[in-house]
Amino acid sequence: MSTSVTRSVESIQKMPEPRFLASDNTSGICPEALAWFLKANEQDDLAYGNDEWTHRAADQFRTLFDTDCDVFFAFNGTAANSLSLAALCQSYHSVICHELAHIETDECGGPEFFSNGSKLLSVPGINGKLTPEGIREVVTRRNDIHYPRPRVISLTQSTEVGTVYSLNELRAIREVAREFDLRIHMDGARFANACASLGVTPAELTWQSGVDVLCFSGTKNGLALGEAILFFDHRLSEDFAYRCKQAGQLASKMRYISAPWLGLLENDVWLSNAAHANAMATRLAEGVKGLSGVDLMFPVQANAVFIELPDEVQGRLREQGWSFYTFIGKGGVRFVCSWNTSAALVDRLIDDIRNALKTRV
Amino acid sequence: MSTSVTRSVESIQKMPEPRFLASDNTSGICPEALAWFLKANEQDDLAYGNDEWTHRAADQFRTLFDTDCDVFFAFNGTAANSLSLAALCQSYHSVICHELAHIETDECGGPEFFSNGSKLLSVPGINGKLTPEGIREVVTRRNDIHYPRPRVISLTQSTEVGTVYSLNELRAIREVAREFDLRIHMDGARFANACASLGVTPAELTWQSGVDVLCFSGTKNGLALGEAILFFDHRLSEDFAYRCKQAGQLASKMRYISAPWLGLLENDVWLSNAAHANAMATRLAEGVKGLSGVDLMFPVQANAVFIELPDEVQGRLREQGWSFYTFIGKGGVRFVCSWNTSAALVDRLIDDIRNALKTRV
Amino acid sequence: MSTSVTRSVESIQKMPEPRFLASDNTSGICPEALAWFLKANEQDDLAYGNDEWTHRAADQFRTLFDTDCDVFFAFNGTAANSLSLAALCQSYHSVICHELAHIETDECGGPEFFSNGSKLLSVPGINGKLTPEGIREVVTRRNDIHYPRPRVISLTQSTEVGTVYSLNELRAIREVAREFDLRIHMDGARFANACASLGVTPAELTWQSGVDVLCFSGTKNGLALGEAILFFDHRLSEDFAYRCKQAGQLASKMRYISAPWLGLLENDVWLSNAAHANAMATRLAEGVKGLSGVDLMFPVQANAVFIELPDEVQGRLREQGWSFYTFIGKGGVRFVCSWNTSAALVDRLIDDIRNALKTRV
Amino acid sequence: MSTSVTRSVESIQKMPEPRFLASDNTSGICPEALAWFLKANEQDDLAYGNDEWTHRAADQFRTLFDTDCDVFFAFNGTAANSLSLAALCQSYHSVICHELAHIETDECGGPEFFSNGSKLLSVPGINGKLTPEGIREVVTRRNDIHYPRPRVISLTQSTEVGTVYSLNELRAIREVAREFDLRIHMDGARFANACASLGVTPAELTWQSGVDVLCFSGTKNGLALGEAILFFDHRLSEDFAYRCKQAGQLASKMRYISAPWLGLLENDVWLSNAAHANAMATRLAEGVKGLSGVDLMFPVQANAVFIELPDEVQGRLREQGWSFYTFIGKGGVRFVCSWNTSAALVDRLIDDIRNALKTRV
Repeated sequence: MSTSVTRSVESIQKMPEPRFLASDNTSGICPEALAWFLKANEQDDLAYGNDEWTHRAADQFRTLFDTDCDVFFAFNGTAANSLSLAALCQSYHSVICHELAHIETDECGGPEFFSNGSKLLSVPGINGKLTPEGIREVVTRRNDIHYPRPRVISLTQSTEVGTVYSLNELRAIREVAREFDLRIHMDGARFANACASLGVTPAELTWQSGVDVLCFSGTKNGLALGEAILFFDHRLSEDFAYRCKQAGQLASKMRYISAPWLGLLENDVWLSNAAHANAMATRLAEGVKGLSGVDLMFPVQANAVFIELPDEVQGRLREQGWSFYTFIGKGGVRFVCSWNTSAALVDRLIDDIRNALKTRV
Repeated sequence: MSTSVTRSVESIQKMPEPRFLASDNTSGICPEALAWFLKANEQDDLAYGNDEWTHRAADQFRTLFDTDCDVFFAFNGTAANSLSLAALCQSYHSVICHELAHIETDECGGPEFFSNGSKLLSVPGINGKLTPEGIREVVTRRNDIHYPRPRVISLTQSTEVGTVYSLNELRAIREVAREFDLRIHMDGARFANACASLGVTPAELTWQSGVDVLCFSGTKNGLALGEAILFFDHRLSEDFAYRCKQAGQLASKMRYISAPWLGLLENDVWLSNAAHANAMATRLAEGVKGLSGVDLMFPVQANAVFIELPDEVQGRLREQGWSFYTFIGKGGVRFVCSWNTSAALVDRLIDDIRNALKTRV
Repeated sequence: MSTSVTRSVESIQKMPEPRFLASDNTSGICPEALAWFLKANEQDDLAYGNDEWTHRAADQFRTLFDTDCDVFFAFNGTAANSLSLAALCQSYHSVICHELAHIETDECGGPEFFSNGSKLLSVPGINGKLTPEGIREVVTRRNDIHYPRPRVISLTQSTEVGTVYSLNELRAIREVAREFDLRIHMDGARFANACASLGVTPAELTWQSGVDVLCFSGTKNGLALGEAILFFDHRLSEDFAYRCKQAGQLASKMRYISAPWLGLLENDVWLSNAAHANAMATRLAEGVKGLSGVDLMFPVQANAVFIELPDEVQGRLREQGWSFYTFIGKGGVRFVCSWNTSAALVDRLIDDIRNALKTRV
Repeated sequence: MSTSVTRSVESIQKMPEPRFLASDNTSGICPEALAWFLKANEQDDLAYGNDEWTHRAADQFRTLFDTDCDVFFAFNGTAANSLSLAALCQSYHSVICHELAHIETDECGGPEFFSNGSKLLSVPGINGKLTPEGIREVVTRRNDIHYPRPRVISLTQSTEVGTVYSLNELRAIREVAREFDLRIHMDGARFANACASLGVTPAELTWQSGVDVLCFSGTKNGLALGEAILFFDHRLSEDFAYRCKQAGQLASKMRYISAPWLGLLENDVWLSNAAHANAMATRLAEGVKGLSGVDLMFPVQANAVFIELPDEVQGRLREQGWSFYTFIGKGGVRFVCSWNTSAALVDRLIDDIRNALKTRV
């Protein structure tokens, strides 16, 4: 709840024993990131990103993506997505996104705030994915001045329901983007999970498929906080550093964001973290598949599992300390695995679900 | 420069041996804060500030300030100041501040951005301080609708030039604030240094002197990042958590901001950190006072020392690896001490200044 | 299209003989309003609304609405609605409106722009009307901080599809507004038509039914331009004049907006203008009712008639010079009558429709 | 002040006999503009600028300025200036203007609101004029990311103190603009008066001297309301029509703004209106020049006269019904002549000043 921070401790729901699968943001910092964080703390350094850690991290992103992209850092995903969208459009433009996109459903109007009014045009689509047809419909629906001019397509990869866009799907969307002169923004809150799932390179999944800007989340991949914003077209990132500064997203002690990123980028830790999370999700899905009263709601292609569970089963799991989100309007629940989700935890959840199913009336 | 992050490493100015006195944001994390940071990393926890660390930190602020204030956290000072100002006024209101205030000179339009247009009315004043007379002049200058209505007084404590407002000065400003129905915002980028300097309690320096909201910087006091925003009037913080969320200032892994604050708040580490920085500044001031060719520009009451130095002396110091800011329009330079500035470093600077003065033509 | 103003004349679609029923904004100024406009032009006067015409008009609104409301003027409906919504909520709040509401579909993001990001939560509902159930669902759907907090209900009276909210319907909505502490905004683009339709007083239809602010359109009622914004709660209009000024909605020669309003308000011209327009819409509806191939899409309760017409009939009508809007997603067309729509014009349209229906294959 | 519209009539200062020289916005509509206004009212027409009047007016601007400029209309000067500045820069850019510029002193934060935070960097300069040196200083003062990047120079022509920039002065400013890649915006609230004063063409005074966008006021030149915005670089006006729409500046009955402009543009009425106003200002200046106790504050080059008058003389004039502004911080007063200011009125003012000077103690 909104004012939780300002109220007393009693409002905290104490779990009998916390079993966090509500989101990948309940996990801590992975060891490799922490090591670099501590290294960066060994001596003083220049502020505002003029330190070496930041330059090295930016260079490593350019190596990883195999292109001379422009790299910026923001504190969190709300800001990374909102600022990059604001860079792609003016206030009277609009952003086409899936109706379940985080920017539409969970940012409390953040994109509209940062862009000073750009409207989100939300579109339905199966498995949480935009399609060329859906995009085309919303673009061609009207072309009068009273309708905010579509300028950007925003894709979430992996999607809000744990699926991934294939390269072919992305390329088909690139075609419609080109036809209507639209830019492509990728919300990569779980970009690493998509790479691991598809077995393709970051380059293939972004600029080689028409993506203009990627918000690559570090928070969900094992950092304390910190997102990277990668522009693959220099014209779109002109003066973007000023935008970040003005909007309260320039860290003075930037090295505490960038150095931990080195821990993720070195030795492809980002990818193994994601691969592990994906594997745990698959393990969970496999474990519950076929249980009577349980239905998987979407293909499990990344690190999230959406399951339709009877209300009483949900209640029993909560009593046992499991934390998870209910999925608005669907009657289902979401479990998200992370870099540090253990097979044992997953197995215990599977057991608890199985037992709860058995004991219900 | 703005695009440093996106360009190659060669642009980094490598100092012969970094001697960082440009700002207190070049320092690292103090040991106590780091200890709590690591403690918070030992297990998973609830996101978005619903963890215990955050509630404990908020409670400790309430204890320290001896009042039931509302506590929020933001990533950096730009955001903390801009968001709290936006909460105090509407877009057509104005904020009265000193002409050297950080919000006026160094935020790239941040306050105007977050408030959607609130104009800053800057006022001169000796030693970087607003006076009741200066405030009265700008409020009574005009009262027509074409002039944005003054609504907030923003004070920086300690000031941008290293001085502090006394309790009497604050109370005199409170009188003029009450007369004209103005709210008082305190930019506490170096609030701890002011407390240490004056030897008064946080309560005396804020709500007991009429301050409505305080932005208390952790970054400059020994954290990696993280500012606390304290509202002393519940009416002014209504729905403020939504404002933070929308504006990209709600950390999902909030505990990595709040837990380190526990390290500062416990055992008054925040105060001893500040007292040390102040002492080092005094040591520097004492060391250069009386040197021919050197003039202290302002009374040294906190952790910053502003000195008029001949250009060639400035050049020599930079060659030796000293980093410091020049003070626009004054021909002087600024040195800022921090929780980890050593007496040895200060003494070496004094020596280097003395030697540079001797060797100039 | 958007850039029509800047391009050459050739883009103007010349009608064989213009027959304007596309909207009530194609009509000119009614004689009574023009008379006052010319009267106000007889001598110089004070600027920015300090003239007597403006004060008289404001007073007449207070008389007409039988309450001490606060009255402001804006240039057009986009601004009147957006500014008043911005006054009712902060950027992180949300506005509940019907999915066909003008503020949602036809303002190019205007409400989001003026409010700096307030999200519109659109709700379906039959006959273009919000219901208590629909409102309740969107308010109770979620209460977390990631969802912009509902703060305002926006009603269009008469609605976008030519229906009207009854007093009972309004009062039921007031109940849900009170339950959830929501304010009620009324988009009165065709408020006069609703009054005329229901035969109730402006007071009954607004503050006596819980409406907090009304945007009363003069443009659609017979002015060249100019909307009145009436606040029925003084607390909500605090400093609203500054908001108008900053947002470019304060006319320096205000009397050219306010004096013509005197022409509408005197002798209830506003009401007879609306009653005439309503009567013409009813005449049209009666005239086509029962024709084979024609379906009225909504009850005709104000001055708009929505008809499902075969495509070839639509094409034939356009060839004959009739201007009208197609209704997105429904395959229908909209005709709107105005204060100066003649019975002869309506009858000719009925004939043309009848003939077009006959001659189609 | 601000809420005058909503309060009762008693607050109106009744003059013994109104003698309006406070501003050129107290005058009415000139006969030629009114004639076209009435012509446009003779029949219905297309809305939103798709009428012929609007296209003809746009074409006549292109003829008058001898170039294929893009033409838009806005309701007032606040909006015209703010919207065009918003089109020239992003929120983190800054606008260089004179410290007396209307956008800085009298728009209640309008430019910051429309641009979502662009900061105005105000510069002093004699006779109300920016100079290349002043511009250069503010641009080169800093180049760090904490300082909003200068992007636009805004010139007021004629200036706020009734002087005009010569072609040579404009060209010198163009040089510095080119050097630093700055765009030039011209606030033409009294553009006509500058043309009349200098005897040069609109083309020479704008795009041929480097101006990128001009806001040409009709209100002060004899209209009821309505400003023209002319872009001389097509790239800068891309999608500008959407910007106007979203910001509440698209008139549905546009012809009531554009048709009167035809009255001004035909037969160069705009120029003769301005020439007359200028002549009356010169007459006033000549009439008071040399009177003991009277000092002209600035060269009288357009339609405004700034005079230092003893306080008791100011008081006497107000008693006699003269309306004028005092000039903040200078102790002087401003008289502005208009298209309908008569020589008799000016002569009476001269007499009244002379008499008041005689009778003071």
